[in-house]
Amino acid sequence: MAKVIKGTGFSSVTQQEIEILEDHLFCINEDGFIARRISPKQEEYEEVLQQALKEEQLIELKEGQYLLPGFIDLHIHAPQWAQSGTALDLPLYEWLNAHTFPLEAKFSDIAFAHKTYHHLVDTLLASGTTTALYFATIHEEASYILAQICAEKGQRGLIGKVVMDAPEQNPDYYRDASAKEALEGTERFIQRVKELNAGTKQGVYPVVTPRFVPSCTDSVLEGLGKIAAAHDMHVTSHCSESDWAHDHVKERFGINDSQVLKGFGLLTDKAVMAHSNFLSDEDARTYQEQGTAIAHCPVSNAYFANSVIPIKHFSDMGVEVGLGTDLSGGFDPSVYSAIRQAVMSSRMLEDGVDPQKEAASRGRAHSRITVKEAFYFATAGGGESVSLPIGRLAEGYAFDAQIVDTGIEDASMPIFDGMDTLDDIFEKLLYLTQRRNIVSVFVHGQQVK
Amino acid sequence: MAKVIKGTGFSSVTQQEIEILEDHLFCINEDGFIARRISPKQEEYEEVLQQALKEEQLIELKEGQYLLPGFIDLHIHAPQWAQSGTALDLPLYEWLNAHTFPLEAKFSDIAFAHKTYHHLVDTLLASGTTTALYFATIHEEASYILAQICAEKGQRGLIGKVVMDAPEQNPDYYRDASAKEALEGTERFIQRVKELNAGTKQGVYPVVTPRFVPSCTDSVLEGLGKIAAAHDMHVTSHCSESDWAHDHVKERFGINDSQVLKGFGLLTDKAVMAHSNFLSDEDARTYQEQGTAIAHCPVSNAYFANSVIPIKHFSDMGVEVGLGTDLSGGFDPSVYSAIRQAVMSSRMLEDGVDPQKEAASRGRAHSRITVKEAFYFATAGGGESVSLPIGRLAEGYAFDAQIVDTGIEDASMPIFDGMDTLDDIFEKLLYLTQRRNIVSVFVHGQQVK
Ligand SMILES: [Zn+2]
Ligand SMILES: [Zn+2]
Repeated sequence: MAKVIKGTGFSSVTQQEIEILEDHLFCINEDGFIARRISPKQEEYEEVLQQALKEEQLIELKEGQYLLPGFIDLHIHAPQWAQSGTALDLPLYEWLNAHTFPLEAKFSDIAFAHKTYHHLVDTLLASGTTTALYFATIHEEASYILAQICAEKGQRGLIGKVVMDAPEQNPDYYRDASAKEALEGTERFIQRVKELNAGTKQGVYPVVTPRFVPSCTDSVLEGLGKIAAAHDMHVTSHCSESDWAHDHVKERFGINDSQVLKGFGLLTDKAVMAHSNFLSDEDARTYQEQGTAIAHCPVSNAYFANSVIPIKHFSDMGVEVGLGTDLSGGFDPSVYSAIRQAVMSSRMLEDGVDPQKEAASRGRAHSRITVKEAFYFATAGGGESVSLPIGRLAEGYAFDAQIVDTGIEDASMPIFDGMDTLDDIFEKLLYLTQRRNIVSVFVHGQQVK
Repeated sequence: MAKVIKGTGFSSVTQQEIEILEDHLFCINEDGFIARRISPKQEEYEEVLQQALKEEQLIELKEGQYLLPGFIDLHIHAPQWAQSGTALDLPLYEWLNAHTFPLEAKFSDIAFAHKTYHHLVDTLLASGTTTALYFATIHEEASYILAQICAEKGQRGLIGKVVMDAPEQNPDYYRDASAKEALEGTERFIQRVKELNAGTKQGVYPVVTPRFVPSCTDSVLEGLGKIAAAHDMHVTSHCSESDWAHDHVKERFGINDSQVLKGFGLLTDKAVMAHSNFLSDEDARTYQEQGTAIAHCPVSNAYFANSVIPIKHFSDMGVEVGLGTDLSGGFDPSVYSAIRQAVMSSRMLEDGVDPQKEAASRGRAHSRITVKEAFYFATAGGGESVSLPIGRLAEGYAFDAQIVDTGIEDASMPIFDGMDTLDDIFEKLLYLTQRRNIVSVFVHGQQVK
């Protein structure tokens, strides 16, 4: 073994249930995977513990510290970190054209990309995000720099060089010059990141990334579908986010955007579609059949999605679901905030929002999710979404984990007199953890914080 | 002057506008008030600055640090801190009877009250909450301890010893023995806290606190109204929180709970009513006429209020509005989270939540508030609600303030290359500040963090 962690951890079993791994040993092999998980009731516990002590491989959690899987952020616009928290009072059009596109265009500047991406990846790792599926920008160099920074800092990064070539939907100063150049750039980017990945333990992956259907021409969507198939690539995009996006695609193609994406070969098992609030049940069945996942971004949705996605309903239909921060449509880089908002938003969908409406017709029944379900989405669900063995403290999974200290100075949680069960403590961890409580983070067995 | 603070601060002018006080001098007098606010353009700036330097009274904000008013938490259940973040997946009835009432009953134990309240007040001060309007419990001693701890630690505390005497609505093990005893206990508590206040610079105030109409008999409500009038006391309660609470009172009295409270003399200029989601326009006009304030608790409302309050509408009608965390119906002790959720919830009310509904009838138009409006509620609005000169960095106001450091290690904000205007930075402060960024807190001129 390379490392043995001793402590109490929490991991999802099903979407509804967690397992509480009290005082377990987590044995991490040289490849960064959890090779064995040993409970104190097992005979070999003492022997493995003593061996690890002797070989100086033991990391023992302190009183009040707990182990959680690292979080998976399925949707985050890396360049937008520079404007996180600003301009959210503006309408979407102005937000995009006065702020977001000009900011993304600045990533032709390599030095600016370096500075922003260093700061962002540090922030995410410190916040317990061990895997992130990034939208970068249209720039090959800056997108590659993001992959390099993930590789160096030890984060598992899935990085999309963004494609947006439709002249009428994108500004002149920030769009792909042509479908042909966009496709060639994507091919080059894929090759370069694959080479980078060869020397990277935790993995960095290139992702085929049409921004969304409205910003792409038919020919670029067709070409990207072919590239995805040829290299068995991850794919990501936005789908059915808002009334505008949904209706726009319907006018152009006469069908929903999920069906358009499917037609172009972009709705694959390794595809993750952000938002998807306006999926019909037929669309959701298509996701389920294709193995395509939803990246649910509840913070950002409050600003730009005109709705709360019925995530319980889609999840019950068998669609894979993970969570995204959607920086900077969402302002918060922490997946903890996405977990909390996912629970709150689901309850607001269930109960409805307008007190003037009758209770019976105000909301949509059976929509709430529990904090355990939101935790599932942030961990195991995210892992399934990107088809990687991550998101659980279980044998055969990569050791991506965070140690949360409930007693740390200036951020201690209200845990008194042994009143709390471990189930209570699990909930306190999810609801009250601040970045300061996250004292260590591991990706693929390597300590990165 | 006792202190001069030099730095850039932000303070509300109107509900929609802030003033950016770039590099100002804030001159704090011996009584803890802002005596003068001097801009660099004013002639006396240099002289006052040099004088303060000479007399070692100058506190100079560092690069990247900003001054905000301290936040006012208008509704927080102090004993429930011990269970914050747990049991929120339960229905209200179970949450109250299996968790909340048994926990509150434990505050007959003085040692437990000490421990919990010390930890809570430390947490709130560290989070930038300089004033809090607390629900304590029915216990006179424990409630007085909370007042003492606020007095010692320097927080401005308004403390309610809770009254709940209705036998059919409260458990035997946790309710006032009779209306008479509840009223006598309230009278004694008021006298004791008034005496304590006489030796406390920042102020601690007793509050008349019927839990809510359903938990009180008519005779206790009547008695509390008389006590409030006799001593010109602050009053607080819950009003029109959920479908159940609203309907229950309507069945008992035939009128809305706000009208019941008014009838008993409990809807005064110094009254703060939590939630108030289901107010009719007539109820809101009554609040406005009486000078009664709403404590809007957006996090807790997502769990227990079956709705989002149309806070923009009520605020436009002239009702005073502040924010509350409502621990532990809300899980988060930070008013920053209340600000963020207030903005998000208001947008969800405006746009609606159910994607199956048509956009035109999904939500309620003109409901959104901006982050500046939410900031107003957390500061100036809270001050107006409790009728105290707090919540603004303005002359004549108590110096209740927090210094936020945007560049602090392990919590630095994305502020690059001077790209951000001070308006952008204000928004980043409100959306991205974590407890760790709050490096100093002042209450009534005294540094408490
Ligand atoms: Zn996005
Ligand atoms: Zn309350």
